[in-house]
Amino acid sequence: MSPAPFTAADFAVRPPEGCGVVGVSNHPDAARIASLALYALQHRGQESAGICVSNDGSFQLVKNMGRVSEIFTEPVLRKMPGNSAIGHVRYSTTGETSTCNAQPLMANLRRKQIAISHNGNLTNADLLAEELELGGAIYQSTTDSELLLHLIAQDREGTEFGVSLHRALTRLEGAYSFTILHDREMWAVKDPRGIRPLCLGRLGEAWIVASETCALDVVGATFLRELAPGEIVRFSGGEVSRPPALPAAPQAFCVFELIYYSRPDSLAGNKSIYNYRIRLGAELAREHPVSADVVVPIPDSSNPAAIGFAREAGLPLEMGLIRSHYVGRTFIQPAQEIRDFAAKLKYNPVQAILNGRRVVLVDDSIVRGTTSTKIVRMVRDAGAKEVHFRVTAPPWKNSCYYGVDTPNEKELLANKMSVAEMQAFLGVDSLGFISMEGVKRSVPPTMRYCDACFTGNYEAGRIVRQTKMLNR
Amino acid sequence: MSPAPFTAADFAVRPPEGCGVVGVSNHPDAARIASLALYALQHRGQESAGICVSNDGSFQLVKNMGRVSEIFTEPVLRKMPGNSAIGHVRYSTTGETSTCNAQPLMANLRRKQIAISHNGNLTNADLLAEELELGGAIYQSTTDSELLLHLIAQDREGTEFGVSLHRALTRLEGAYSFTILHDREMWAVKDPRGIRPLCLGRLGEAWIVASETCALDVVGATFLRELAPGEIVRFSGGEVSRPPALPAAPQAFCVFELIYYSRPDSLAGNKSIYNYRIRLGAELAREHPVSADVVVPIPDSSNPAAIGFAREAGLPLEMGLIRSHYVGRTFIQPAQEIRDFAAKLKYNPVQAILNGRRVVLVDDSIVRGTTSTKIVRMVRDAGAKEVHFRVTAPPWKNSCYYGVDTPNEKELLANKMSVAEMQAFLGVDSLGFISMEGVKRSVPPTMRYCDACFTGNYEAGRIVRQTKMLNR
Amino acid sequence: MSPAPFTAADFAVRPPEGCGVVGVSNHPDAARIASLALYALQHRGQESAGICVSNDGSFQLVKNMGRVSEIFTEPVLRKMPGNSAIGHVRYSTTGETSTCNAQPLMANLRRKQIAISHNGNLTNADLLAEELELGGAIYQSTTDSELLLHLIAQDREGTEFGVSLHRALTRLEGAYSFTILHDREMWAVKDPRGIRPLCLGRLGEAWIVASETCALDVVGATFLRELAPGEIVRFSGGEVSRPPALPAAPQAFCVFELIYYSRPDSLAGNKSIYNYRIRLGAELAREHPVSADVVVPIPDSSNPAAIGFAREAGLPLEMGLIRSHYVGRTFIQPAQEIRDFAAKLKYNPVQAILNGRRVVLVDDSIVRGTTSTKIVRMVRDAGAKEVHFRVTAPPWKNSCYYGVDTPNEKELLANKMSVAEMQAFLGVDSLGFISMEGVKRSVPPTMRYCDACFTGNYEAGRIVRQTKMLNR
Amino acid sequence: MSPAPFTAADFAVRPPEGCGVVGVSNHPDAARIASLALYALQHRGQESAGICVSNDGSFQLVKNMGRVSEIFTEPVLRKMPGNSAIGHVRYSTTGETSTCNAQPLMANLRRKQIAISHNGNLTNADLLAEELELGGAIYQSTTDSELLLHLIAQDREGTEFGVSLHRALTRLEGAYSFTILHDREMWAVKDPRGIRPLCLGRLGEAWIVASETCALDVVGATFLRELAPGEIVRFSGGEVSRPPALPAAPQAFCVFELIYYSRPDSLAGNKSIYNYRIRLGAELAREHPVSADVVVPIPDSSNPAAIGFAREAGLPLEMGLIRSHYVGRTFIQPAQEIRDFAAKLKYNPVQAILNGRRVVLVDDSIVRGTTSTKIVRMVRDAGAKEVHFRVTAPPWKNSCYYGVDTPNEKELLANKMSVAEMQAFLGVDSLGFISMEGVKRSVPPTMRYCDACFTGNYEAGRIVRQTKMLNR
Repeated sequence: MSPAPFTAADFAVRPPEGCGVVGVSNHPDAARIASLALYALQHRGQESAGICVSNDGSFQLVKNMGRVSEIFTEPVLRKMPGNSAIGHVRYSTTGETSTCNAQPLMANLRRKQIAISHNGNLTNADLLAEELELGGAIYQSTTDSELLLHLIAQDREGTEFGVSLHRALTRLEGAYSFTILHDREMWAVKDPRGIRPLCLGRLGEAWIVASETCALDVVGATFLRELAPGEIVRFSGGEVSRPPALPAAPQAFCVFELIYYSRPDSLAGNKSIYNYRIRLGAELAREHPVSADVVVPIPDSSNPAAIGFAREAGLPLEMGLIRSHYVGRTFIQPAQEIRDFAAKLKYNPVQAILNGRRVVLVDDSIVRGTTSTKIVRMVRDAGAKEVHFRVTAPPWKNSCYYGVDTPNEKELLANKMSVAEMQAFLGVDSLGFISMEGVKRSVPPTMRYCDACFTGNYEAGRIVRQTKMLNR
Repeated sequence: MSPAPFTAADFAVRPPEGCGVVGVSNHPDAARIASLALYALQHRGQESAGICVSNDGSFQLVKNMGRVSEIFTEPVLRKMPGNSAIGHVRYSTTGETSTCNAQPLMANLRRKQIAISHNGNLTNADLLAEELELGGAIYQSTTDSELLLHLIAQDREGTEFGVSLHRALTRLEGAYSFTILHDREMWAVKDPRGIRPLCLGRLGEAWIVASETCALDVVGATFLRELAPGEIVRFSGGEVSRPPALPAAPQAFCVFELIYYSRPDSLAGNKSIYNYRIRLGAELAREHPVSADVVVPIPDSSNPAAIGFAREAGLPLEMGLIRSHYVGRTFIQPAQEIRDFAAKLKYNPVQAILNGRRVVLVDDSIVRGTTSTKIVRMVRDAGAKEVHFRVTAPPWKNSCYYGVDTPNEKELLANKMSVAEMQAFLGVDSLGFISMEGVKRSVPPTMRYCDACFTGNYEAGRIVRQTKMLNR
Repeated sequence: MSPAPFTAADFAVRPPEGCGVVGVSNHPDAARIASLALYALQHRGQESAGICVSNDGSFQLVKNMGRVSEIFTEPVLRKMPGNSAIGHVRYSTTGETSTCNAQPLMANLRRKQIAISHNGNLTNADLLAEELELGGAIYQSTTDSELLLHLIAQDREGTEFGVSLHRALTRLEGAYSFTILHDREMWAVKDPRGIRPLCLGRLGEAWIVASETCALDVVGATFLRELAPGEIVRFSGGEVSRPPALPAAPQAFCVFELIYYSRPDSLAGNKSIYNYRIRLGAELAREHPVSADVVVPIPDSSNPAAIGFAREAGLPLEMGLIRSHYVGRTFIQPAQEIRDFAAKLKYNPVQAILNGRRVVLVDDSIVRGTTSTKIVRMVRDAGAKEVHFRVTAPPWKNSCYYGVDTPNEKELLANKMSVAEMQAFLGVDSLGFISMEGVKRSVPPTMRYCDACFTGNYEAGRIVRQTKMLNR
Repeated sequence: MSPAPFTAADFAVRPPEGCGVVGVSNHPDAARIASLALYALQHRGQESAGICVSNDGSFQLVKNMGRVSEIFTEPVLRKMPGNSAIGHVRYSTTGETSTCNAQPLMANLRRKQIAISHNGNLTNADLLAEELELGGAIYQSTTDSELLLHLIAQDREGTEFGVSLHRALTRLEGAYSFTILHDREMWAVKDPRGIRPLCLGRLGEAWIVASETCALDVVGATFLRELAPGEIVRFSGGEVSRPPALPAAPQAFCVFELIYYSRPDSLAGNKSIYNYRIRLGAELAREHPVSADVVVPIPDSSNPAAIGFAREAGLPLEMGLIRSHYVGRTFIQPAQEIRDFAAKLKYNPVQAILNGRRVVLVDDSIVRGTTSTKIVRMVRDAGAKEVHFRVTAPPWKNSCYYGVDTPNEKELLANKMSVAEMQAFLGVDSLGFISMEGVKRSVPPTMRYCDACFTGNYEAGRIVRQTKMLNR
C-alpha cells in the first residue's frame, strides 16, 4: 500500500512569499546585473521572474514562470543589450499558469515605452480600476500594479512624465516599492509609509536599487542608503535627481521583514538582520525558558534565532534536522499525487542528536501549522523524550494587505486556536511565542513598524473591496 | 568546401501571407471546432496561432508561435471548455520572437472580457493611435488591431456594447474582417469595401464564421453565404441578429485571393476557386501561346492554372517538379547557416520529364524572383532544352496596404524591372504574365475588385503615415 | 455532439514505411551532407533519424525520435565534425517511445568504434540470436540489425575487419542494404538478391551511398550506379575498393519500390521512376477502362499514375482532392481523442470538379482500406455521380518479410476480401487493380523482382520464427 | 566593464561526487519507492538518474541527465508499474552530453533481461575489457560497470544465473556495491573489502537496499544492517537468501564517506555520522587550537564539524556565511560565460558577524582550493581581522581509484603545496588539517578504513592501465 499524498504546503520551501524588485541604471550590461541582483532576491518570490531592459529607449522584456537561473541563461542575457533595466521576482497564486500577471509590466505610452516592477499591494485598487475604466482603460493583466500605468496615461494635464508620475502616485493607497523604466530613464519610488524596503547602491558609474542589500552585495555594489518613505528618485544618463517626495505619513516598516522575510545577510537600519534574529532568539529564551538538553533550529531560516536562544539559555545547539537541497519545484507540480513523506524529503532528523533528549525546536513563524506538526512527529519518532516549540514571532492571526502572500485568514493556525490549543494540535510539551513587546525590544528602535499581521492594526488601511475582475 | 547559405526566402513555402480568422458560437466544444477550422486556414498564416474561448463569459486565451497542430493538442484543448470561441492564424514579421502581437488580443473592458481576431490592415492606424493616446490609451501590442479595443473603451456615450462597437468601426479605414468575443457573445464584421473574405456557416445548432469556406468544410459545417461588405453579425445564445450595417462603399474584393491566396477548394461567388484558376491558366495560354513539349506547374498552388494552360494549349501536363513534404520550419530557424540547395530540398526535378524537352513552367506569381530563378536553373540542369515561364498574375509592382504581407515595394521584381529584364534575370527563353483584363475575364464578373498590387489603384486609401511605435 | 475519433491510420501520410540509409566518405562536412541526404529519404521513414560521424576514428552519434529537420539543426550539426558519416531514417513500430532501436547502432569493438545503418529485414534473425547468445552476446536493442555487430565481434579467426565482415554477411538471410562506419573507414553492402536499392554517387572528392538517387540530387552529387546484388564497397581516405562480393543469388528487387515506395524523381534502371508510374497508369487504363468524366489522383504519390491513366483513357485530369501540407505528427500523437474528420484535414474535395461528374480515383495501393473508404465517401458527398477506383498495384495480400513495415496480414483488405467484396466495402461503382503481368510490362525489363506481397512467392525465404525477445 | 568569468568549479555544490544505488524488491510500487530513495541519495551524484523496473520479468528503463525530481515526475512513475526495481544517481564527467553512460545499464541476456547499478570503480577494467573482446564482446557504454554483464554473458559453464554471477564477481578488482535486476529477481552485492556502503532495510513486505540509511528513512523503511564485505543477497518473490559470499579480504571502508561524502543523518556502525563529524571538529580544535572570536562553518556540510570545534574551543558558533538555495544547474551550464561573483551567489557573508572579528572557518576538505580562496577573500572583505582555516580531513593528495570522482591528482592543492604554501595561497592567518591519527580516533574503531586519498596506501589495488577506449 502506498502512503498518503503530499500536499503542496508540505513542500513550500518558505511559507509566505511576496515580490522583489531591482533597477539598474547607467551600466553597459544592465540586464546581466539585474539578473544577478534578482538571483539574490529569489527568496522573495520563486515562481516567476522578469527583466525589462532599455537600449536607448528601445525596450526588451523577458519574463517567465520559473527560477531566475532558469530564465536568464547566458544565451538569453546575451540578447538583452542596454544600459538600464528593471527586474522582478514573484510568487504565483494558486492555479496560475500563464505569465500575464508576471512582471515587469510593459506598455506603449504616448509613443514611448514604459515598464514597472512592483513590490507591495494597493488597498484602493478596485476603486481606482472602476474610475479608470470610465476613462477608457482596458487591462492587460489582473494585477493592481497595472493601475499605475493607466493613472499616468489618463493624466490629461501632465505634459512631463515626472509630473504625471507624481500625480498618479498620490492616488495610490497601500504598500509599494516601484522600479520604473521609462524611455531612457529609470525611476524608483517608495510609498509614504515605507512599508516595503528599497535600497540604493553604487557600482562604478552605475546605480542600483533593490528590495534588499544582499542584492547589492552579489553584484559587488556599495550600499548607500535606504530610500526614505515617500521618496522618488530619478536616474538619467548617470545623473541622479530627487523630485519632490510624496506627502509624508507615519512610517510603518513591515516588522515581518526583520523576523523572517528578508535575508539575514541583508541590512536593516545599517545592521545585519542576522543580529536582530539572534536578539529575537535570546529574547524568546528569556520570555519562555525551558529545561531541556538541546536546541535545534528548523533550518535554514531559523538558524540565527536558535543560536540566540541556545546561547541565552546556556543549552547546546545542534543541527538536529538535516535539510535537503534537492526539493525542486518539479517535484511539487503534480503535488496531489505524491506521497506523504514530504516533510522527510525536506528534513531528515539526526537520531544521534534527538534520541532520548529533551529538544527545543526554534522556528520563526507558524502559518497553517501543517509542516510544524509533521516535523514534531518526526522528531518524536527519532526518540526525543520531550519536544518544546519556540517561535520568534507572535501568533500570526491576520492577513497581510501590504504584499506578503498569506493564506486566507481562516487558515492561519493562530486565528483558529488559543496557544494551549495550538500546543495540543502540534503535539508538543510546551509552546512559546515571543511577545510583540519582545519583538520591539529586539529590532532597531529608530524605526516605526507595521505589525498588522500580529495585532490587526492596519495603519495603512484595509483593502476596500474585492471584486471578481481584479484577482489580487 | 560547403555550399553557400540558404536565405529564409528560399524556404518560404508560400511567398506572401497574411492572417485568417474564425469564430464559433453555440457549440459545446467551441475551442476544438475553432482549432480544426484554423487548421484549414493555416495557409493564410503559418507562424502563430491562437484561440480565445468564452465559458459563460470567463475567457481563456491560448496563443503561441508555431503551427495550429503543435499548439492545439488534445491536452490543451481538453482544458479549454466553453461554447463560443474565436481564433486566428498569423504570419510573423522578420525577427519577431514573442507572442505579444499574436492574436486573438484579449483585454478586460468595463469588468467584462473582450477578445478580437483581425484579418486585414488599417490605413489610418497612426492617426487613431495618436488620438487614443491623448485619451489615455496604453498599448499592449504594436498591432493596429488593438486600436479597435481602445476605440470601444474610450467611447464615453456608449452604454451598450453594440453601440460602442458600431461607433468604433466607423472610425476605421482600410481592410478588416473581425471576429470578436465579448462576454458571452460573438460578433463578426466585414469592412464596407469587403476587401477580405468572411463567410458564415451552420453546424447543427452552432454558427461558424471563417475567412474561407474550406474551414467550414473541415468541420462539416454547411456554407450559408459570404458576409456582405459592411455587415455586422451578432451571435448570442444560439440566436443571430444583424445590427445596422456600416455605411456602404464600393466593393473592392482582393483579386489576389482568387489568383493565389485562398485555397482552391474554397468558394468565391459560390463556385470553387479551383475553377477560376483553371480559367486563368487557359486565358494565359491564349494571351501568351508558346511552342513547347510539356507544361509543368510549380506545385502545389499552381497545379490548377497549369492544367488550364495545358488543356488550352493542347500540351501534355506533367508533374516535373516533385515537392517535398518535409520542409519544416525548424529547418528554417537558423536560416543564415543552412546551405544553398534550399530549392532542391523543396523541389526536385524529374529528369525523365525535363531532359531534352521544351518546358512551360506555370506559376501564380513572381514576388522577388529568387525562388523562381533557382527553379529555372534546376530545370535547365535537368536537361530542359527551353524554359518558358508563364504567370497567372500581372506583374506585381505595388505593396498591399490591406493585409497581405508583402516585401518592401523596392524588392518586388516587377517594380525594379521591365518584362524583358525579368526574362533575362530569370534566365528563361520567354516570359508571359496574364493581363489585368485577362484576370477580370476569368474571375466572377459579379464582384468589384481591389487590384492595387498590380495597378497601384488604392481605392481603400493609402497608409497615412508610418511611425516607429506601431510596426505593422 | 462531437464527431467520432480519428484513428492513427487516418493520419498516416504514407501507409507503409521502412527505412532509408546513407553513407558519406571523404567530405570535410560529412554529417551535414548526410543530414541533407537523409532529408531527401524522409519518405522512407518518418519517426526517427540518426547520424554517426567519424572524426578520425572518434565517433559521435546523434539519433532521436522526430524528423530529420528537427533533429539535425545547425547547432547540432556544428558540433558534429568529421569526414565520414552514416545515417538512417526509420519508421517506428506501435508504442515505441524510446530511441534504443533507432539507428545507426553504435558499439565499441576491439578498441575501435563501429556503427551500422540497415534497410531491410533478416529472416534468420532468431536463429542467429540464439547462437550468438551461446557465444556470450548481450543485446542493447531488439532489432535484427544488431546481429551483424555480434557476428563480427564473435568471429575468432578474423584478424582483419573486412574478413570478419564478409564472414558475418554470409550468415545473414533476407534483405539488407547496409552502410557501416568502422574506425576511419566506411563500407556499403547490398544483399545477394539486391532486394533493397542502394546507389553510389560522387560529390567532388567525396563518395556518397544512399537508398535512392534523390538523396544524391539534393546534395548535388553525380549518380554513378546502383550497387550490384551482393556487392561490398569499402571507402578509405578517398579511395574506393571492392572486396570480393557475396555469393550470387537470383536478383529479387522489390517491385513495390517502383510502384509506390521510392520517390518518383529517383532513378531505377537509370530512368526516373516517374516514367514507370505513368506507364503503370496507362496499363491500368487499358486493363480496366471506364466511361467517366474526370480522372482524379489521390495526391501526391498517385499523381503520375493518374496522368498516365487520364492520357491513355483520353479523359481530363483534375486535382479534385486538395491535400493539406499541415498535417503534423504532433496532431497525431493523442490520436484516440481527435475527431473523425481526419481525412478531411488531409484531403479536401473540390466541389466544382466532382459535383455531378463520373469520377475515376487513381491510387497506388490499398492497404487496410480505411482511408480509401473515407475518401470515397467524401467524393460522393461532394456530389460525384459515379466513383470508379483504380489501383496501380495488384491486390496486396501478404506481409513483407524484407523491410517494408506492413500491418498484420490479417488486416490487409485484399487478404480478407475478393475484389467484388472490396468494391462493396469501398462503396464504389467499379474497382480495378492492375494485374501482376501489367506491372511487369510497365517496369524495367532488365531486372528480376520480388513480388511476394502480391503473389506470396517469398524467394528470399520466410521468417523462421518469431520470439518475444526480438520484436522486429 | 563586466567582471571576470566564473569557472564551473565555483559552482560545484559539493566538490567530489560519485554514485548512489538503490534496489527495491517485492513492493507493488517499486519504481516510486526507488525514486524517493534516490532522492535522498542525490548528494552522491547530481547529474543523471535512472530506474529500471521489472514487471514480472518485463523491464522498463528510464534514465536521463538531470535531477531525480525532474526525471521521475508523477506521469513518468505512473507508467512504470512493477514490483522490483533498481536505481542509480551519477555525477557526469566533463563534456558528457549523452545518457549512454548513465545507469542502470540494461541488456538482453539469454532471452532474459538484466540491469545493473554500480557504485564504485573497477581497477582491472582494461584487462577485463581486452579479454572479453577476444571473447566477442561489444560495448554499448564506456563504463567499467558494463563488464560485469559481459563476464556473465560469456560464462559458458553457468547454467544458473547465480553461479555465473558469482564467477563473474570473483574476476572483478576494486570497489563495487551493485544492485542487479535479473528477470524477476533482485540481487545486491558488496565487494570483499566493503569499500562503498550498502545497507539493507525492510518496508512492510518489501526489501530495500541502498547506499545509505537516509534512503531508508525517507521511505519509512526500517534499517536492518549493513551488508558484510563480499556479501551477496538474492531477493526473489518476497524471499531473501544469501548465496555463498565472495572470498574474504581485509575491510577497507572509505573513510571519506564519514568525513564528507555520506549524509550526516545516515548511520555508520549504527550511529549517526553527524556524531563522528562533531568528534572530528573537536579533535581538530585540540590539534590546531587558535585564539579567535567566532567559529563559522562553510555551510551546510561543515556545520557539525564547526559545532564540534566551537564547543571544544569554547568559542561562539555563528552562521557567518549564508548559503543560497537557488544555485541551479541551469545557471552552471554555460559556465565559461558567467561572471566571477560565483562564490557570492552561493555564499554571502554576514557583516555583523565577521566585521572586526578573528574568524575560524571550518571546512571538511580542500580540493583544488579555488572556492576556499574566494570564500576567504569574501570574509576578509566583510571586515574580518584574522581568518583561520581548519579542515576536518588530512591534506588530500591522491586520486581515488574506488569511485569518488576526484580531479586529476595534479590539481589537488595538497599535492602541489606544503601546508605553509597552502596557507599563503589561501591568504589565511593560519591553516590546520586534522591528522590521520586524529581522524582514526574520531571514527568508529570497529572498522578498518581505506585512506588512500590521504596516505597513498591503495590497499585495494591501483588502476592497471588507462586506455582511450574506456573513459572511466
